[in-house]
Amino acid sequence: MTGNKTVVYQGPGQVSVEDLDYPTLEIPKEVADGMGIKQAAPHAVILKLVTTNICGSDQHMVRGRTTAPVGQTLGHEITGEVVDAGDDVLFHSVGDICSVPFNIACGRCRMCNEGKTGICLNVNPARAGAAYGYVDMGGWLGGQAEYVMIPYADFNLLKFPDRDQALEKILDLTMLSDIFPTGYHGAVSAGVTTGSTVYVAGAGPVGLAAAYSAQLLGAATVIVGDMNAERLRQAESFGCATADLSTGDALPDIIADIVGEPEIDAAVDAVGFEARGHGEDAAEAPATVLNDVMSVARAGASLGIPGLYVTGDPGAVDEAAQHGQIGVRLGLGWAKSHVFVTGQCPVKKYNRQLMNLILADRAHIADAVNATTIGLDQAPDGYAQFDAGAAQKFVIDPHGMVA
Amino acid sequence: MTGNKTVVYQGPGQVSVEDLDYPTLEIPKEVADGMGIKQAAPHAVILKLVTTNICGSDQHMVRGRTTAPVGQTLGHEITGEVVDAGDDVLFHSVGDICSVPFNIACGRCRMCNEGKTGICLNVNPARAGAAYGYVDMGGWLGGQAEYVMIPYADFNLLKFPDRDQALEKILDLTMLSDIFPTGYHGAVSAGVTTGSTVYVAGAGPVGLAAAYSAQLLGAATVIVGDMNAERLRQAESFGCATADLSTGDALPDIIADIVGEPEIDAAVDAVGFEARGHGEDAAEAPATVLNDVMSVARAGASLGIPGLYVTGDPGAVDEAAQHGQIGVRLGLGWAKSHVFVTGQCPVKKYNRQLMNLILADRAHIADAVNATTIGLDQAPDGYAQFDAGAAQKFVIDPHGMVA
Amino acid sequence: MTGNKTVVYQGPGQVSVEDLDYPTLEIPKEVADGMGIKQAAPHAVILKLVTTNICGSDQHMVRGRTTAPVGQTLGHEITGEVVDAGDDVLFHSVGDICSVPFNIACGRCRMCNEGKTGICLNVNPARAGAAYGYVDMGGWLGGQAEYVMIPYADFNLLKFPDRDQALEKILDLTMLSDIFPTGYHGAVSAGVTTGSTVYVAGAGPVGLAAAYSAQLLGAATVIVGDMNAERLRQAESFGCATADLSTGDALPDIIADIVGEPEIDAAVDAVGFEARGHGEDAAEAPATVLNDVMSVARAGASLGIPGLYVTGDPGAVDEAAQHGQIGVRLGLGWAKSHVFVTGQCPVKKYNRQLMNLILADRAHIADAVNATTIGLDQAPDGYAQFDAGAAQKFVIDPHGMVA
Amino acid sequence: MTGNKTVVYQGPGQVSVEDLDYPTLEIPKEVADGMGIKQAAPHAVILKLVTTNICGSDQHMVRGRTTAPVGQTLGHEITGEVVDAGDDVLFHSVGDICSVPFNIACGRCRMCNEGKTGICLNVNPARAGAAYGYVDMGGWLGGQAEYVMIPYADFNLLKFPDRDQALEKILDLTMLSDIFPTGYHGAVSAGVTTGSTVYVAGAGPVGLAAAYSAQLLGAATVIVGDMNAERLRQAESFGCATADLSTGDALPDIIADIVGEPEIDAAVDAVGFEARGHGEDAAEAPATVLNDVMSVARAGASLGIPGLYVTGDPGAVDEAAQHGQIGVRLGLGWAKSHVFVTGQCPVKKYNRQLMNLILADRAHIADAVNATTIGLDQAPDGYAQFDAGAAQKFVIDPHGMVA
Repeated sequence: MTGNKTVVYQGPGQVSVEDLDYPTLEIPKEVADGMGIKQAAPHAVILKLVTTNICGSDQHMVRGRTTAPVGQTLGHEITGEVVDAGDDVLFHSVGDICSVPFNIACGRCRMCNEGKTGICLNVNPARAGAAYGYVDMGGWLGGQAEYVMIPYADFNLLKFPDRDQALEKILDLTMLSDIFPTGYHGAVSAGVTTGSTVYVAGAGPVGLAAAYSAQLLGAATVIVGDMNAERLRQAESFGCATADLSTGDALPDIIADIVGEPEIDAAVDAVGFEARGHGEDAAEAPATVLNDVMSVARAGASLGIPGLYVTGDPGAVDEAAQHGQIGVRLGLGWAKSHVFVTGQCPVKKYNRQLMNLILADRAHIADAVNATTIGLDQAPDGYAQFDAGAAQKFVIDPHGMVA
Repeated sequence: MTGNKTVVYQGPGQVSVEDLDYPTLEIPKEVADGMGIKQAAPHAVILKLVTTNICGSDQHMVRGRTTAPVGQTLGHEITGEVVDAGDDVLFHSVGDICSVPFNIACGRCRMCNEGKTGICLNVNPARAGAAYGYVDMGGWLGGQAEYVMIPYADFNLLKFPDRDQALEKILDLTMLSDIFPTGYHGAVSAGVTTGSTVYVAGAGPVGLAAAYSAQLLGAATVIVGDMNAERLRQAESFGCATADLSTGDALPDIIADIVGEPEIDAAVDAVGFEARGHGEDAAEAPATVLNDVMSVARAGASLGIPGLYVTGDPGAVDEAAQHGQIGVRLGLGWAKSHVFVTGQCPVKKYNRQLMNLILADRAHIADAVNATTIGLDQAPDGYAQFDAGAAQKFVIDPHGMVA
Repeated sequence: MTGNKTVVYQGPGQVSVEDLDYPTLEIPKEVADGMGIKQAAPHAVILKLVTTNICGSDQHMVRGRTTAPVGQTLGHEITGEVVDAGDDVLFHSVGDICSVPFNIACGRCRMCNEGKTGICLNVNPARAGAAYGYVDMGGWLGGQAEYVMIPYADFNLLKFPDRDQALEKILDLTMLSDIFPTGYHGAVSAGVTTGSTVYVAGAGPVGLAAAYSAQLLGAATVIVGDMNAERLRQAESFGCATADLSTGDALPDIIADIVGEPEIDAAVDAVGFEARGHGEDAAEAPATVLNDVMSVARAGASLGIPGLYVTGDPGAVDEAAQHGQIGVRLGLGWAKSHVFVTGQCPVKKYNRQLMNLILADRAHIADAVNATTIGLDQAPDGYAQFDAGAAQKFVIDPHGMVA
Repeated sequence: MTGNKTVVYQGPGQVSVEDLDYPTLEIPKEVADGMGIKQAAPHAVILKLVTTNICGSDQHMVRGRTTAPVGQTLGHEITGEVVDAGDDVLFHSVGDICSVPFNIACGRCRMCNEGKTGICLNVNPARAGAAYGYVDMGGWLGGQAEYVMIPYADFNLLKFPDRDQALEKILDLTMLSDIFPTGYHGAVSAGVTTGSTVYVAGAGPVGLAAAYSAQLLGAATVIVGDMNAERLRQAESFGCATADLSTGDALPDIIADIVGEPEIDAAVDAVGFEARGHGEDAAEAPATVLNDVMSVARAGASLGIPGLYVTGDPGAVDEAAQHGQIGVRLGLGWAKSHVFVTGQCPVKKYNRQLMNLILADRAHIADAVNATTIGLDQAPDGYAQFDAGAAQKFVIDPHGMVA
C-alpha cells in the first residue's frame, strides 16, 4: 500500500499536490466524536479515483473567501472504482465503477429518509450536511486524489452497470457527482417544464448544466446571462440564447428581444454570493443576481437558487454581507408571489435518472460544459485557468484511465 | 335605489364613513382601458354586505405607510347577499349569500387557470393581482360599505348552501374572505402536516388564523410569538404555546423549553415588513421576523410568508427599505436549504374546503381570532382599537344582519 | 348567413356530410334545462373551422359500439377562427385563431377551479364532463363542420399569438385540441420523467402522441406495442423502439431484449376497452392491455390510462363487459403498488405549454402522427381508411385554409 | 441465552405457541442466496418484544386462504427493546425502545431511496417487498414472539425518544408498526384533506385507523361502512357516521342521508379481496367493495386501497379470482377520472410524524381501534376471537411490560 497524492489548499490563490496517507475505513474523528459513534466504518469503501473534477465552489476556498485553513484537502466531485470494502457493504463489490454524490449522507436519518441528502443529520456535528474536501463540512478528506474513502457506501454509491460502457462515457458520467444534478436541481426547482421560457444567470459549469437540464426538461427557450463572452459562446454551442450583461443593456429588454416579452416563466440563479453588478468594472454586489432574476421572473414563478450563499464571508464588501446578510428586494418577490428554493442539490435524488439518460446516449453534458481532461499534477494549473474565466470544466484523471 | 355608505381613508390615522353612489355593473375605467376591454360587466353582481371585516393590511394604508390618496375606499373582506346580477351570471341568483375572495380574479387568464388567483393578469393594468378597496390594486371600490360590485361573479363567489345555516355561522364564515384562507395558506406553504412542530411569528388575526390552521392540519405543537401579551393570551385560548418576545429571551431558547429542541419543523411569518426588533422599545427592523424564523426552522423547512412585504414603503427606516430592499440573512437560509413561499393567498384555492369544515361544525375560527361585531358607523373606532393592538378581529355588520 | 356543412353519423359504418343550420350563441336545451340556466350564451363565440380532426374515439360511435343515434353530429378536435362573439367575451376577438379543448368546461365550477376540466359539473346534466359531437356528452353539436359554437369562450379558447405563424404550423397546432395533450397526459400520468424507460400500448394517434410526449419528457427509451406493422413503422420514424404483438412473443421478453430487463419504469394504456388478445386472430379481450401493462410495469409504477373504458358497451364479448365490468388482475397491480390513473385528459392543463413548444419549433407532432389533410367532403373516406388501420391522422380542412 | 416462544401457523384455523431458537444476527438463507450476499448481518439488532399485534392480514393465512405451510411463524406488528446490535448499528443502542415497520427494507436500493419501502428490491428474491412472519415475503421470522431479529436496523427502527413516556403510551405507539400508518396511507392516498367528506369501506382495525386518520387530516365528515354492528359502534365511538350494509339499503342513499348528496370526496377500500356482497347471507364477491367505492366517490376522486388484493387465492369463488383476476367496473371509474392507489403502506413514510402526534397527546389510536392486551399464550384465543368479528385489536404483551 502506497501513499495518496492529493490536491491541498496552501493559502489564497495557491494549491499543491501533496503525498498524504492512503485512506482507511474510518470516518473523521470530529464526526465520530460529535455524533457519539465509533470511527470504524464497516459501511465504507475505498475508491481509486477514475475522474475527479474541479468545482466552482472549490474556488471560494482557493480565492480565500472562506475560513479554510492551509492544508485543507480539496475535491468533492468523485467517480471511482471500488478497491476495498467494509464488512457491511453488501451491494457493491471490488471492481465496480461508481459515481459519488458530493453530499455525504448516512442513509439512516430523517433527512436522508426524506431524500434530503444535502442536509444529512449524522455527518457533520456543526450543522446539517457534509461534503468531501470542504471547509466546515465535517472534516472529510478531499477526492482530488488517487484514493478516497466513501462512507455509507451502499447508500452513497451509484454503480454504473457496465464497466466498458462507463469508461467510454466517463466524461459525461463524471458530471453526475455534482454539476449535472446541481444544474438539473436548479432547473427543477425553478419549475422548468414542457414549453417554459427560462433564464439562467451565470454561464459557469453549473449555469451551463442548468441550461442544458432546462432543455432536457422541455423548455421552449433557454437564455443564459453572463459577462464572460467565451462562456456565453459555450452556452450558444448547445442552442441557448444569451444575454451579454457586460453591455449595460437592461436584462428585461434583452429578454424581450428574444422571447417577445420582458419576462420568463422560470429563472435560475447559478451565481450566488460572489455576484457582481452589470456593465464594465462592475463591483461585487452579493444580491444583484437574485434581485435580477426576480425582476424578470413572471408572477407566480419559482426561483431555483443553486448558486451558493454563505453564512459568513470574511472578504465581503460590507459588514452585513460578512455575516451573510444581503439586500434582497423581498418586496418585489412578494408582490409576484415568488417561491425561492435554496440550498445544495441532493444529488441522489437525480443522479440515477441522469445516468440512465447518458447511458441511453440522450444527454451529452460533457460537451455542454466543455469537459477538459488534465492529470493530477496539472490540478494547480487547472485551478488557475478556471479562476481566470476559462469556459472549461476541468476533469482530473489521476490514474490515466480516461481514453 | 339609494346611496352607499362606505368607509373612506382621510389621511394618516383617519377614516370616515361617506355616502357614495350605489355601485353599477361596471369595472373600473382604469382596468377597462388598461386591458382594452369594455366597462360593462354582464359577469358582475351587486352584493348587499352581510359582513365586512377590518384587515391588518388596511392598517398599512391608514397608518400612512402607502401612497393611498385621501378618498381611497376601504374594505376587501366581503360577505354578502346577491341583490342584482348581470346577464352572464348563470350559477348565482338574487338572494344567495356568498363569500368573496379578497383577490379579484377574472377566471379566464393563465394564472387563474393555474389556481393562482392572487396574481390574475386581467384585473390590474399595473401589475398582476388586484383587490377591493386597496391602493395600487386596480382601482376597485372597497367593500366596507352597504353595497359592493363583484366582477366575474360566477368565478369569484362562494355560495353558502343554506341561508339560515349561513347566518347562524356568519362570524366564522366571514373569515373565509381573507384571514382564514390566508392563515391556512401560510401553514400549508410552511409544509405543516400531521405531527409537525410549528412556529408562527405574529399573533394578529392572520397569525392566529395560521396557528389555528396548523392545528387543523394536524400539528403536534403550535407556538405563537408576539410582543403583545393580550394577543398571546388569545393564542393560548385555543391551545397554542406562546413565545413572549418582549422579554428579551432568545427565540431558540423559548422554543427549546417547549418542544425540547431549539428548532421547529415549520415556520410562518405572519408579520411582514412592519416588523420590529425584540425586547422593549424595539425599533422597526423590516427583515427581523424573517431572519428569526430562519434561525429556528429546521434544515429542509419551508417558510410560509403570508406577512406582507412591499415594493415601496415611504415611511421605512432607511432608503433601501423605502424601495423594498431589506437585509435578509440569505446565507443562513441557503445553508439550511430553506424554501421561501411568498405572496398573497389565492383564497379560492382554500375557501370551499374551509367553508365545508365550518358548516360541519369542525372549525371555530371566529373564536380563535376573537371576532367582534360593530356597526358601519363604528368602523373608525374599530380601526383605532385594532391599531392600538386590541386582540380582536372587527366584523362590520352594515345592515344589522348578524344575530 | 348560410348553412353549415357537418359530418353526421348515419348508422354503423356510415357517416355523411349534411347541411345543417348555422350555429347560434345558445347552449343545448338539455344542458340549459338540466342546469336550470338560460340558453342564451353571451359567453360564447362562433368559430369558422380552420382544421378539425377525426379521432379514434369517434370510431367507437361509427362502429356502432355506443348508443349514438342516427343523426348524431361528429367532431370534437376543433381549431378555428372567431367570427362572432357574445357580449361577455372580453379577451378574444373576431379574427383570432384558436385551439379548442375537446372537453367543454364552464370555468366556474369546483372541478374547473381545480383544473379538472374533463369533469366539469355544469355542461352535462347526465354526468360530469362533456364534449362536442359525442353521444351522452351533453348534446353539444359536433365540430367536423364549417362552423361551430364554443361556449365559455374566454375559458375554453387558446389563442395563437400570431395568425401567420399559426397557419404555418397549423398541422402541429391542430393536435392541441385532443391527441397531443391526451398523449402527454398519458405520459405524465405514468410518471414519465428524465431517464425513464417507457412502454406505450397502442400505436394509434394517441399512442404515438404518448410516445412522442414521453420523449419530450426526457425518457431514455420509449417502446411502442401494437399488432399493426404500418403503425409500428410510424413509431419507429421518430425514434421509438417497437414491440410487434402479432408475433406471439411474450411482451416481457420483447422488452428485455430492448432495455435489458423485462420491466419498464412507466407504462401507458393507449388502447382501452376495444383491446384484443395477442397473436394472429386474437379475439377482443377488454382487460388484456391493462393486464399486460401491469405485467411489465415496475413495482411502484403509475399506469397512465388515456385509452377509453366505457360504462356500457352493447357490442361487448360478454354480459359483464356490456356493463363495463372487466377482468382486471388487480392482485398483480396491488402486489406491485401500482397507481392507476384513468379518465379523459383535461386538455387545458397542457395545451398552452405544448403550443409554446410547437411555436418555438421544438415539437413536431404532426409528423409523429402522420397528419394527412383532407376536405370536408372526404370525411367519410377518412373515417373508412382510419377504421381500416391506416397509420395516419386525418385533418379535415373545411375552408381550404391549410397550405 | 434461552429459546424464543413464537406464534406458529398449524393449518387452517389453528395457531400454537412454540419454543423456537433464539434469533441470530443473520438474514434468511433464501434472501442471502437470492441476492448474492452473505447471511452475516452487522446491520441487524435483536429486539425483545414489548408488544406485538395480531393483524387482519395474518387471518388470511390462518383461514387457509394462502399457501402458507404448517410451521410458518407469524407476526409483523413489532415494537421492542434493543438487546443486541451488530457492528454497523451506529445510531441505536441496547435499551432503546423502538417501533418496527412491518415492511422489511434495506435502505440502500432505488425503491428505498424513493421512500417506497413496501417494495424494497433487496429483501425478497421472489418479488419486491418483504415482511416478518408472512408467506411468500422472503422467509423472515415472525415477531409474535419473545425476541426477533430486525435487519438494517438503523434504517428500519423508529426510536421512541423517552423510555418511560413510551411505556406509558405503548398501546398507541404499538399501532405505528402497521395499522395506524396503513390507515393513514389509505386516507392520504384517497386525497383526504381539510373539509373532505370521506367514506371508509370496512370497520376492522385498518378501516378504523383510516377513519381516525381521515379525522386527523381534517375531514368534515367520515362515514364507515360494514355489516358488523359491533364494529360500526366502535366507529361511532370516535365520531364517525356509519353505513350499516347488512340492511340492504343502497350505499348512495345512506350517504345522501348523512351528507346531503350521494357522493363523497374521498373513499378508502379497507376490505380487499375477501369482500362480500351486501345484505344478509351475502356471498363472497371480491370486487364488490372496490366497485362500491367507485359508485359513491365523486368524479375526480382518488381511491385509497389499503385492503389487500392477492395474486393467487386458492380458496376464491371462481377460477379467475383464484388467479387474482376480478370483475372491476373499470368503465365507471374511467368515466369519473378516478385514480386507484394500491399496495402496501410504506410505513416509514408516516410513522415518525404519527409518533410525534401520539407523544404530543393529540392522537389516541388505541381507543379508536379498541386495543386489548393479551399474553403470548393467549394468542391462539386472540386469533379466534378476531376471526369471529370481535371489534378489538389484540396486542400481545410477551414479557408483561404493558402496565
